[in-house]
Amino acid sequence: MRRYITEFIGTFFLVFTVGTTVLGQVPLAPLAIGATLMVMVYAGGHISGAHYNPAVTLAVLLRGKITGAQAVPYWIAQLLAAVVAAILAVFVVNPATVTAVSPSGRDIWTALLAEALFTFALAYVVLNAATSGDHPGNSFYGLAIGFTVVAGAFAVGAISGGAFNPAVAVGAATMGLFDWTKIWIWLLADLAGGALAGVTFLALNPKERLPLETAAA
Amino acid sequence: MRRYITEFIGTFFLVFTVGTTVLGQVPLAPLAIGATLMVMVYAGGHISGAHYNPAVTLAVLLRGKITGAQAVPYWIAQLLAAVVAAILAVFVVNPATVTAVSPSGRDIWTALLAEALFTFALAYVVLNAATSGDHPGNSFYGLAIGFTVVAGAFAVGAISGGAFNPAVAVGAATMGLFDWTKIWIWLLADLAGGALAGVTFLALNPKERLPLETAAA
Amino acid sequence: MRRYITEFIGTFFLVFTVGTTVLGQVPLAPLAIGATLMVMVYAGGHISGAHYNPAVTLAVLLRGKITGAQAVPYWIAQLLAAVVAAILAVFVVNPATVTAVSPSGRDIWTALLAEALFTFALAYVVLNAATSGDHPGNSFYGLAIGFTVVAGAFAVGAISGGAFNPAVAVGAATMGLFDWTKIWIWLLADLAGGALAGVTFLALNPKERLPLETAAA
Amino acid sequence: MRRYITEFIGTFFLVFTVGTTVLGQVPLAPLAIGATLMVMVYAGGHISGAHYNPAVTLAVLLRGKITGAQAVPYWIAQLLAAVVAAILAVFVVNPATVTAVSPSGRDIWTALLAEALFTFALAYVVLNAATSGDHPGNSFYGLAIGFTVVAGAFAVGAISGGAFNPAVAVGAATMGLFDWTKIWIWLLADLAGGALAGVTFLALNPKERLPLETAAA
Repeated sequence: MRRYITEFIGTFFLVFTVGTTVLGQVPLAPLAIGATLMVMVYAGGHISGAHYNPAVTLAVLLRGKITGAQAVPYWIAQLLAAVVAAILAVFVVNPATVTAVSPSGRDIWTALLAEALFTFALAYVVLNAATSGDHPGNSFYGLAIGFTVVAGAFAVGAISGGAFNPAVAVGAATMGLFDWTKIWIWLLADLAGGALAGVTFLALNPKERLPLETAAA
Repeated sequence: MRRYITEFIGTFFLVFTVGTTVLGQVPLAPLAIGATLMVMVYAGGHISGAHYNPAVTLAVLLRGKITGAQAVPYWIAQLLAAVVAAILAVFVVNPATVTAVSPSGRDIWTALLAEALFTFALAYVVLNAATSGDHPGNSFYGLAIGFTVVAGAFAVGAISGGAFNPAVAVGAATMGLFDWTKIWIWLLADLAGGALAGVTFLALNPKERLPLETAAA
Repeated sequence: MRRYITEFIGTFFLVFTVGTTVLGQVPLAPLAIGATLMVMVYAGGHISGAHYNPAVTLAVLLRGKITGAQAVPYWIAQLLAAVVAAILAVFVVNPATVTAVSPSGRDIWTALLAEALFTFALAYVVLNAATSGDHPGNSFYGLAIGFTVVAGAFAVGAISGGAFNPAVAVGAATMGLFDWTKIWIWLLADLAGGALAGVTFLALNPKERLPLETAAA
Repeated sequence: MRRYITEFIGTFFLVFTVGTTVLGQVPLAPLAIGATLMVMVYAGGHISGAHYNPAVTLAVLLRGKITGAQAVPYWIAQLLAAVVAAILAVFVVNPATVTAVSPSGRDIWTALLAEALFTFALAYVVLNAATSGDHPGNSFYGLAIGFTVVAGAFAVGAISGGAFNPAVAVGAATMGLFDWTKIWIWLLADLAGGALAGVTFLALNPKERLPLETAAA
């Protein structure tokens, strides 16, 4: 339960910051959002591993650091936090109008590609910086994880909305920032990016492969 | 006495930076303010614990790392530094006009909520990053603490003024940036957020609970 | 092969971020680009050393940490990744028009100088932060490396285009951002800067000089 | 000699970045300048201690970590690097016009105060983060030092020019950014701030006081 509350708190502040900065039209929203992720990773990493992202949880599951039975309550806590944060962000900012990102035609392909690439980058950084046995006890994992989102949101925010996280996508849709009928774009691309990162990590770090019985324990 | 002078120096530079950047209308004020907090945390952490914030001191008190008798001079040093810094910031910037944040009606509720949430986040990050036994000697605590303020000031600065710190609120009121008659909003929300963080930390980190006699020692 | 795939991934995201932020006219492109380098250094450093830059590979070769036989596939992976990233960045951003940096006359000299100086700085930081025996296991190497590019891109981006990396230069030319007929400016200046850094590092760190037979092993 | 070349390189890039960003009117000059300081501190700290600033060298001298005989060549290397960097920055940027900061009347007092305060902060951070025996081998010292300049340049750059460093002041005057007839303002305030930091550090860290014979060794 400690882990799930920690996941709730971290995801809550991540999505709340997405909401207040995007609804409030803060120019440096990507820096604020990535900073929130960074500080929540440093705060909660020692309790829950600090995923705050269903795609990261999927990558960690495929990499063998948590089990399917543990992943489900992570996903529930993350999605619940996203919805609560979205409701509070709308209450706090009280925006006059909100325009939803709603890709169509060619833009669906570029959004899928941009989301999948940077969600892959995010989960790849998480697995290498925070779960590798090559640098245990390092102090950079939160910096690396948070600034992957800073970079991605500046790089492709205008193309895909820059979620890189199904919980952020659900929160953004709840706030009216993403079109609910297109939510499959983010869910599909982000989970695919996370899954690819899990597989890639194991391919590049053969000594990290856990025996199956351990991974399922 | 070393501790209280260290708290004075750190809080002084924090509030002085708030004053010069906000009175001077620097667009990236949140980055400058959070950076000052970060560097002062790294400079003074080994001497005083680097609170620079009465709400953080309250959280650390509830978490059992300092006693009530130690907390009082921390609070005095922090508030004194805030007033001195405010006076010097006004002298240095010499602003033509200053408009005070003065929430009323619905805005009182959103300001209370925004301040309480991010002061909770700040104290939660302090307790987990700087006082947990899970990662002693880490190098990230100042980065995490400072960038919580960067994120919060970008996220809700336009909603609540973004103090997250009763000493900053008193300094801002001294400079004319906050309405003195509304100072209770920041004092109430920030101390509530800090207290909630202290309780939450102990709930999520059961092994960190000190026996009462030790906490009162 | 693990090393070359890691170099491919890191260089790919570096050049893809250059492409999407510069083609997309993101004002804080230097921060996004440097952040991507930083996070990919933290992600891949334990596998390949995280060069992502033929000039850095040259500096590491001269410094004696890799051999010529190892350097060649590094260079191939980096250049291949740059071309693939450039093609995808153009597809994703789909820019209306692209103007190529094409120095002529006096501007060739200032571009050569600016590129050589900051590529020297970048490789000098890499060698000292990531390969020195004086601080093994430090957590700052990625931060130092990434923010050298942040600083350099803000400082001389308007003068030389701010590549500091032959693979980035090739990627930028592929995207139409650099003039192919002037590509020698970046290749020459960047490799010269990297080579100078390798020599300088050995001069300033005499105890790091490996015996020739070891370096050639 | 290794130490003095390292001081030359670090100070050169610091002043060169000041020159190209300020002459080139880069909006985020403070971030670029502080980032350059940070990366050069990480690159050169293990060789020379990475002062790059005569006021910091003075603070380290008073704190007892170097001797007067060592300080003189540090100062020479720093000032020489500043002049060379200034000349190259003007060559590279080739600015149409340059306006010099030239405080007079009341502005002299505010410039003196702003410079002295933030140079004190800078040297105080250096001594506590990089020379304290309480956290040897930490990874945050460069981040703390560099971002003190980021914060100070945003906070009081418009008031005093934001040098916090006599070598930067001399470089800025060489470039025409500071009025040579007012150079005493920066020299006086910055050296006073550095000296005060040295004294303050020893007062707050009594166990760090070296016996006089050791300091003079």
